[in-house]
Amino acid sequence: MTPSAFSPAVEALGQEMYQLASELFPICRSLTGAGVRQTLQTIGRLIPLRMHEVPSGTAVFDWTVPPEWNIRDAYVADARGHRVVDFNRHNLHVVNYSVPVRARMSRAELDAHLFSLPEKPDWIPYRTAYYERSWGFCLSHRQRLALPEGEYDVVIDSTLEPGHLSYGEYCLPGELPDEILISCHVCHPSLGNDNLSGIALATFLARHVATEPRRYSYRFLFIPGTIGSITWLARNQALVSRIKHGLVLTCVGDAGKPTYKRSRQGSAEIDRAVGHVLRHSGAPFEIQDFIPWGYDERQYCSPGFNLAVGCLMRTPNGRYPEYHTSADDLSLIGPRHLADSFATCAAVLAVLEGNHRCINLNPKCEPQLGRRGLYEAMATAQNARDPQMAMLWVLNLSDGSHSLLDIAERANIPFGLVREAADQLCQHNLLARLTESGEVSQ
Amino acid sequence: MTPSAFSPAVEALGQEMYQLASELFPICRSLTGAGVRQTLQTIGRLIPLRMHEVPSGTAVFDWTVPPEWNIRDAYVADARGHRVVDFNRHNLHVVNYSVPVRARMSRAELDAHLFSLPEKPDWIPYRTAYYERSWGFCLSHRQRLALPEGEYDVVIDSTLEPGHLSYGEYCLPGELPDEILISCHVCHPSLGNDNLSGIALATFLARHVATEPRRYSYRFLFIPGTIGSITWLARNQALVSRIKHGLVLTCVGDAGKPTYKRSRQGSAEIDRAVGHVLRHSGAPFEIQDFIPWGYDERQYCSPGFNLAVGCLMRTPNGRYPEYHTSADDLSLIGPRHLADSFATCAAVLAVLEGNHRCINLNPKCEPQLGRRGLYEAMATAQNARDPQMAMLWVLNLSDGSHSLLDIAERANIPFGLVREAADQLCQHNLLARLTESGEVSQ
Amino acid sequence: MTPSAFSPAVEALGQEMYQLASELFPICRSLTGAGVRQTLQTIGRLIPLRMHEVPSGTAVFDWTVPPEWNIRDAYVADARGHRVVDFNRHNLHVVNYSVPVRARMSRAELDAHLFSLPEKPDWIPYRTAYYERSWGFCLSHRQRLALPEGEYDVVIDSTLEPGHLSYGEYCLPGELPDEILISCHVCHPSLGNDNLSGIALATFLARHVATEPRRYSYRFLFIPGTIGSITWLARNQALVSRIKHGLVLTCVGDAGKPTYKRSRQGSAEIDRAVGHVLRHSGAPFEIQDFIPWGYDERQYCSPGFNLAVGCLMRTPNGRYPEYHTSADDLSLIGPRHLADSFATCAAVLAVLEGNHRCINLNPKCEPQLGRRGLYEAMATAQNARDPQMAMLWVLNLSDGSHSLLDIAERANIPFGLVREAADQLCQHNLLARLTESGEVSQ
Repeated sequence: MTPSAFSPAVEALGQEMYQLASELFPICRSLTGAGVRQTLQTIGRLIPLRMHEVPSGTAVFDWTVPPEWNIRDAYVADARGHRVVDFNRHNLHVVNYSVPVRARMSRAELDAHLFSLPEKPDWIPYRTAYYERSWGFCLSHRQRLALPEGEYDVVIDSTLEPGHLSYGEYCLPGELPDEILISCHVCHPSLGNDNLSGIALATFLARHVATEPRRYSYRFLFIPGTIGSITWLARNQALVSRIKHGLVLTCVGDAGKPTYKRSRQGSAEIDRAVGHVLRHSGAPFEIQDFIPWGYDERQYCSPGFNLAVGCLMRTPNGRYPEYHTSADDLSLIGPRHLADSFATCAAVLAVLEGNHRCINLNPKCEPQLGRRGLYEAMATAQNARDPQMAMLWVLNLSDGSHSLLDIAERANIPFGLVREAADQLCQHNLLARLTESGEVSQ
Repeated sequence: MTPSAFSPAVEALGQEMYQLASELFPICRSLTGAGVRQTLQTIGRLIPLRMHEVPSGTAVFDWTVPPEWNIRDAYVADARGHRVVDFNRHNLHVVNYSVPVRARMSRAELDAHLFSLPEKPDWIPYRTAYYERSWGFCLSHRQRLALPEGEYDVVIDSTLEPGHLSYGEYCLPGELPDEILISCHVCHPSLGNDNLSGIALATFLARHVATEPRRYSYRFLFIPGTIGSITWLARNQALVSRIKHGLVLTCVGDAGKPTYKRSRQGSAEIDRAVGHVLRHSGAPFEIQDFIPWGYDERQYCSPGFNLAVGCLMRTPNGRYPEYHTSADDLSLIGPRHLADSFATCAAVLAVLEGNHRCINLNPKCEPQLGRRGLYEAMATAQNARDPQMAMLWVLNLSDGSHSLLDIAERANIPFGLVREAADQLCQHNLLARLTESGEVSQ
Repeated sequence: MTPSAFSPAVEALGQEMYQLASELFPICRSLTGAGVRQTLQTIGRLIPLRMHEVPSGTAVFDWTVPPEWNIRDAYVADARGHRVVDFNRHNLHVVNYSVPVRARMSRAELDAHLFSLPEKPDWIPYRTAYYERSWGFCLSHRQRLALPEGEYDVVIDSTLEPGHLSYGEYCLPGELPDEILISCHVCHPSLGNDNLSGIALATFLARHVATEPRRYSYRFLFIPGTIGSITWLARNQALVSRIKHGLVLTCVGDAGKPTYKRSRQGSAEIDRAVGHVLRHSGAPFEIQDFIPWGYDERQYCSPGFNLAVGCLMRTPNGRYPEYHTSADDLSLIGPRHLADSFATCAAVLAVLEGNHRCINLNPKCEPQLGRRGLYEAMATAQNARDPQMAMLWVLNLSDGSHSLLDIAERANIPFGLVREAADQLCQHNLLARLTESGEVSQ
């Protein structure tokens, strides 16, 4: 999979995103606790993130904010005191959200709390015990098989106590109160593609948006999966109707082709914009229909909200063997893939930002483009990519009912060319932009 | 074609259906007359059929109920008195509805009244003289060619006189006045697939429905083709609007794959229900668009009624070589094929009975299934056939505008799983059934 | 490509159309001037064309009627006075609308005004200088390469002065004020397929329509491309709403398969009628979506008019190598291809003329066709092409919402059979024609 070509600036961004992912990799994140806070603080050095702390026990729709989980140490030691499984070596070794334990037990008793992958004997699986009050250790299957009979000391020095759920939010006001939502989950520990890639992309996309002129307002959310989006939605119900388009970003750093999962609405503007960008990328891609399984789009697309939020990935969750194992590390993701994902997102935002409806001010017959210097190439060229073809399409379809994206799709011309054609026609007073309510913009 | 697996009970039903077809096979049925009455009485021993007798001459829309036809004997005898064609040997030998004849004629004169199939020289064709006042004999082509020159005595000891058109009706009231119509034609004489198979299936389907709890009312019609449905419709115009779904059953006993011919509406609930059942059967099937040619669906789907009535067959009329010949006998149909057709119909009725619209009572974000014990398998399994996936689909799409069949189709999950998921969610007060008018059921 | 079979009368029309194209071929046409007038006069001998003259300088929407161009002589002569390029040998030698020139210049100076086709070294290109005030000569590339260094005398004895734009119009009133528009461009000089073929077809189609009973009124336009349709639309805005269907005819004489370019509306009745005729022609064809590039359909389909006007061609503009060169001559077109295009157009007009909505007067159950003698063939034949199948389709779908074309499309039966079936049913009072407002015709 060769990512499509992009500018040196975007290439450099790929390196910066990879750098951020690398810096965040060692932190032991979870739904709550110090790992999440440390992650948000690191991101906060790049964008002015507002931190939120929601107390454990807070009711959020059908759910309750859980106790805060923190962990200092955890190990399994053999009779000689040798740590045979050690949280300090890899934070995936402890089942995330394990209750505190301090016990001696036989090999057999211990085994009921061990998790490994027989078919991938060198990888440590990633497991959680959210909402369960249990504990366990994850290890490679090879290591598990090598554990001799005998007594073991088991220690999980964790706390699971009233505290807070932490999340970060960054709002960028635009011309309109209408919002574009970018959401990523920050609860996964040392896993590269799922979801340090999404965190890095969202962070640098926010920096990019901040420097661009923008029609829409933007909201970037860095939240723990499921409970985070539920918490945000519960606390911000009055704002939800402002969200016009949204993307969940995850698994965006691997070498696979871009994969877009449509919103529940299925043909919302975000769905059409991403589809358009991917179709004109010149590279392979995949578009999937919405299913109520996956990431936080499940909550944004629950029927009570039904937001136009899709999910951009490269290889989706569960479709790459390293998914939810220690093999989803920094070697699985790459700067070029992150850069390609960035370029896709930036192009999608450019479509949303520029997707006006326009009205042809000279709708009866074609205007005489020639005497305005807009028709030179036309006499000989008939290339569909020709700027003049884009102009003729914009003029022909700008009857008030077609947006520029409608026109780009109908004409099978990249949105950028259509947008440029519209801008030129506006400059010559042959076209005018319409407001949302259908009036000519002044 | 291997019919899909079904329960021993359904397998046994196949035998019973075949038994009924065998018992009815020798009877000489027609549009009217003793053969139809005897057939209805036989069915009446299995289900409490109400018999109707409509006088000849009764006007039914553009038609008139014809004179009643009865036949005692018919033959062609050679000069030595030897019966060379004998109605007693096969009741297809006489053209159905032949007027009485008693005459002597030459081989050549006789030949104008003979019908045979040169391309199938051993089979006797099935022919009718409805609404014509003519007569004839059908015989194998081999037999016809072997008839020597000479004089023949021709006798058809039939009557065609004012009498009645007979049909049977069985009504099963349900919770709702809304009806499901099951219709089959009882006018064909000794022909197995067309339509003893349909008669047997309708009879045992009625027995099945009678023992099940049911939301809908049911109406089973055993009628002569065309004039029977026209007569029923003409006499019951006030009831017609109650019929919400319907099936004509014919040619349902042969070894071919199930074939469903859509109603004129094309995407009525019955069309979608049959399509769903066949798609999830795991066996080959065919779905055809409506055409105004075929069986009694022609009348139910005439534009003045436009009922949602499709036609379930296996190999359709005219598409198997034995159609309308003596080779469409009991060897062409089989208990397993009848059982498979029964299973299909029962599954279709289960879809119609269970196809509610529901409303998610916790529509904002997903409910916490885990604390209700509804999420156990979910953490590891992601199988689309998983009961939890069905639950998530039901929750996600139960916004008041999707029926359970809509959800099963969208999720590509068998209806039964979706129905079970909905039932479980209702038990946990996460979902409520909506009435037809869109209110929450109490 | 074998054109489908047609009657000797149509075959003879092919010869007459070719004859007209041959007669018009030598004339040097342009947007304006004597060539157009001579062309219209020739057509006027076959149909009573009304001539229009619109003064140069007249404002027509965003355009202005240009000065009139006329040319008497033009050549390039070498130092010995030998005419090396001579307008009298081929009128494509002069760039159409060249300003007057009388000058002596070097080979190099001359070359900036020469146009040839290196990849087709024997063909003279066709070029125009509309709206440009420039001049030039076109010649074969072989001839251009052979021009020696030296001084050349260049003469274009043209005038570009205030005058008129000429076009011809032929109106045929019908029962209704609603119009069918047939439009062809008359501005191309000695080019056979583009567009003497279209001119010949429009002329003979007009003669055909004049002799037929007709529901619609017809308008035939013989106009210069682009400025002609713009001028007509600007001068006849009050009439435009009468135009219900239309065809631009061009490139209809070559051996390629028929190609239809849909109107901007995309599924207007004209689009469906042409599609139906082509699908039932038994010969290859192509249907293209509308694009805002091509012929005068660009103006008729501009958003301020959005008329249901498509474009009928054989091989489209730019898709055959001879396009806009001297090789698009009388050898590229043929009587049989013109006849086939005529047959297509006539069939399309027959669909439009006969495309009523009807109402089944006996909508409850089928009527008894047999007692009316309409059912004879039915008992045995089940051929979809059977007239009785057409009758059953017409009866079944004539519920007031389907036109006869709808029925023909749904039944996949040629329109003519459906129309005949409807006529027979009307004669038997089983069907009635509906007016546009949905009332039964008296």
